[in-house]
Amino acid sequence: MQDHLKGFREFYPEEMVNRNYVLNSLENTISSYGFREIGTPSIESTQLYIDKSGPEIVDHLYSFADKGGREITLTPELTPTVARMVAMRGKSLPKPIKWFSTRPFWRYEQVQQGRFREFYQTNVDIFGSHSPQSDAEIIICAAHMLSDLGLKKDDFTFRISHRTLLSDILKSFSPKIDINAAIRTIDKKDKITLEVYEQSLINSKFPQKSLDELESILSLTNLPELSESINRDNSQTAIQNLGDILDIVSNTLAEEHCSISLNTARGLDYYTGFIFECFDSSGEIRRSIFGGGRYDNLIHDLGGPQIPAVGFAFGDATLEKLLIRTDLWPQLKLSTDYYILQIGNTQKIVNELAHKLRTRNNIVETDISRRNLTSQLSYSNSINAQTVIIVGERDLQKNEITLKKMSTGEEVKVSIDDFPGDHDHPSYEDFHSTSNIDS
Amino acid sequence: MQDHLKGFREFYPEEMVNRNYVLNSLENTISSYGFREIGTPSIESTQLYIDKSGPEIVDHLYSFADKGGREITLTPELTPTVARMVAMRGKSLPKPIKWFSTRPFWRYEQVQQGRFREFYQTNVDIFGSHSPQSDAEIIICAAHMLSDLGLKKDDFTFRISHRTLLSDILKSFSPKIDINAAIRTIDKKDKITLEVYEQSLINSKFPQKSLDELESILSLTNLPELSESINRDNSQTAIQNLGDILDIVSNTLAEEHCSISLNTARGLDYYTGFIFECFDSSGEIRRSIFGGGRYDNLIHDLGGPQIPAVGFAFGDATLEKLLIRTDLWPQLKLSTDYYILQIGNTQKIVNELAHKLRTRNNIVETDISRRNLTSQLSYSNSINAQTVIIVGERDLQKNEITLKKMSTGEEVKVSIDDFPGDHDHPSYEDFHSTSNIDS
Repeated sequence: MQDHLKGFREFYPEEMVNRNYVLNSLENTISSYGFREIGTPSIESTQLYIDKSGPEIVDHLYSFADKGGREITLTPELTPTVARMVAMRGKSLPKPIKWFSTRPFWRYEQVQQGRFREFYQTNVDIFGSHSPQSDAEIIICAAHMLSDLGLKKDDFTFRISHRTLLSDILKSFSPKIDINAAIRTIDKKDKITLEVYEQSLINSKFPQKSLDELESILSLTNLPELSESINRDNSQTAIQNLGDILDIVSNTLAEEHCSISLNTARGLDYYTGFIFECFDSSGEIRRSIFGGGRYDNLIHDLGGPQIPAVGFAFGDATLEKLLIRTDLWPQLKLSTDYYILQIGNTQKIVNELAHKLRTRNNIVETDISRRNLTSQLSYSNSINAQTVIIVGERDLQKNEITLKKMSTGEEVKVSIDDFPGDHDHPSYEDFHSTSNIDS
Repeated sequence: MQDHLKGFREFYPEEMVNRNYVLNSLENTISSYGFREIGTPSIESTQLYIDKSGPEIVDHLYSFADKGGREITLTPELTPTVARMVAMRGKSLPKPIKWFSTRPFWRYEQVQQGRFREFYQTNVDIFGSHSPQSDAEIIICAAHMLSDLGLKKDDFTFRISHRTLLSDILKSFSPKIDINAAIRTIDKKDKITLEVYEQSLINSKFPQKSLDELESILSLTNLPELSESINRDNSQTAIQNLGDILDIVSNTLAEEHCSISLNTARGLDYYTGFIFECFDSSGEIRRSIFGGGRYDNLIHDLGGPQIPAVGFAFGDATLEKLLIRTDLWPQLKLSTDYYILQIGNTQKIVNELAHKLRTRNNIVETDISRRNLTSQLSYSNSINAQTVIIVGERDLQKNEITLKKMSTGEEVKVSIDDFPGDHDHPSYEDFHSTSNIDS
């Protein structure tokens, strides 16, 4: 039998219940900020990615010609798609536009721990606001959603940086530097040797003699010091912008996670302002957990109107690693509210009971394999049934059924006319106490 | 700007809110039967589909070679994937195994109304039970989920058929008939002319002289009559099986939707027993809404163990058409619990209020565009804010904020120390009545 492809995952129910718990928590927090869910196609014209996302991404696409000869690509990221959707209706939609979505994306990459060819990504974006309030909201929302999963001050940090500032710092050394290439090198700094790093900067026409000076500026984490070091107009505006953002973030739950780090650059070319990356504070997970930033020109560059944008995106695999590292990955077990056990020909009553309980939002299973009592009890244990309702032919002659509380084995007989009564989730206790009162 | 590809859809938030409402309702009903969610890869080896699903499906795949030369395919259906997952762990999992999932699938087909190249499909399957109880549960669950969406007796019908019975009826006319081809022809009957239908049967070696007799048998809807017409062993067993299934379905909400229809055949080759299709009772939507049935040999045929299986699957587009036809497609509007309106420099208090309300499961937006009062009020209307909380510099000197109920325009001043108090969803009424009691 054909196995699943390398880098693609399948999830059994006991994994899905925990994945869904985490995703629901994340999306609930994001929704509480007024982000609205959108739905997007999994395939786009390959042209949408060419020349837009930088060589990093274009090299690793699932691209092919469809049966009609169209060059198409499995979406490696959401941004160009969402940019088009904004461009299409951007003029009529009230601003800011706040959207999120979660779905699989695909990149043809080397499969390694925590990196898959099919990965799930949640995208969160604000379109139509230039204000530092919107940058701050992205940071606060990102910290809030991690906090709601139980992550604490010492678990994660946000490294805050700024693309305009980085570009301006680089330009101050020489007007000839290939800024995008140099920024991509800075982005890779943690993953390559110092030698490769420096050679790569030199290749992008950064002057060799200034490498040490660059390092000392990139290591500054204090805005006033930065302001003194780089006396150029764009830099001052960018530093002011970072100051405004951090000022709004202060006194929120995000504050204690934020620090300035100009060695944070983000790989993609389209960022234009504030950028950030989330890291495991322990350093145990070396890659960034996720990141984001401002990209004010992309929608225009893709052929749409000039609409500012800021957002972040996170993948399922790295976030799962952080939650496992911090012992916060949930350990939920599948369970079943009721198993209705049949003895003899009681199908009609069983169907009725099952229907009543299901319409009251309970998970109910019945015997669909024509099993004997022992096999049914064994199955009800295997599905972690909380209550077993025994419906026997003989009991029914006395108009009775039996509720069995599985955690203790206690049982109570109940008149079928009283069940489930007013109870949405009828339990052994509900009917045990009733019989006490009656006696 | 590159438009989305033909046959692919993007959904804006006002569409997603209604799509999600419908999907949540469907999945809640399905879950109440003890079906558990699984997650599956979007791409599989092309080999998994070749020779397995019949020519209908293999002709219309998004198939290509990846950058490593693997022949891969965007999954056109879930069954082979889920069959593999069952085969992998089938021996260790308690039976019956009851799984569901919803996600996009892809087929390269002619784009027409209600048919897309990317479509969302929900699959619901039971593995490991031969019993008619499991066939019946599939029918009952399918009817229940439609009923929970508001669909009534006169809105939809389930046409019930049986593959063994169909095969046996065909075989009774001649041992030479290509049974799978003939069944695919019967499946297409409603979509082709009588002439094409009959010629197609003749092409599959069905004897021309017996066409009328076939029609008269296929039009029988009464099990005893069928039993008299076809006196072959397999047929009798199949008719008994259909009788058992319909007997279990009787006295459930599914009963009034079910009728025997041997002209219902299902296109895919792998069905082995009971099959059914759901149709719009009005006939306005001519294609079947969805369908399913028993496929006991597929997991074994794919290289796994012999595990019986029965299930159904439905797509988003046809179901949406049925809900629109019956005026049951939801008309939910996006709304926002609170908009916090800022006047002057009140960022810190606004952040705190927003955080408190968000942690209480409310959707809260604030000004992230540095707007004046009029623009903020206008935006709060555009996002359908239920309550606007006005936080002004001057009011704050008196330690006050204002709650404005947007449906009536009524306002009440509230001490910031009392807000939100014990209220999870603090409203104008909560504080208006408080001031009354105080006075």
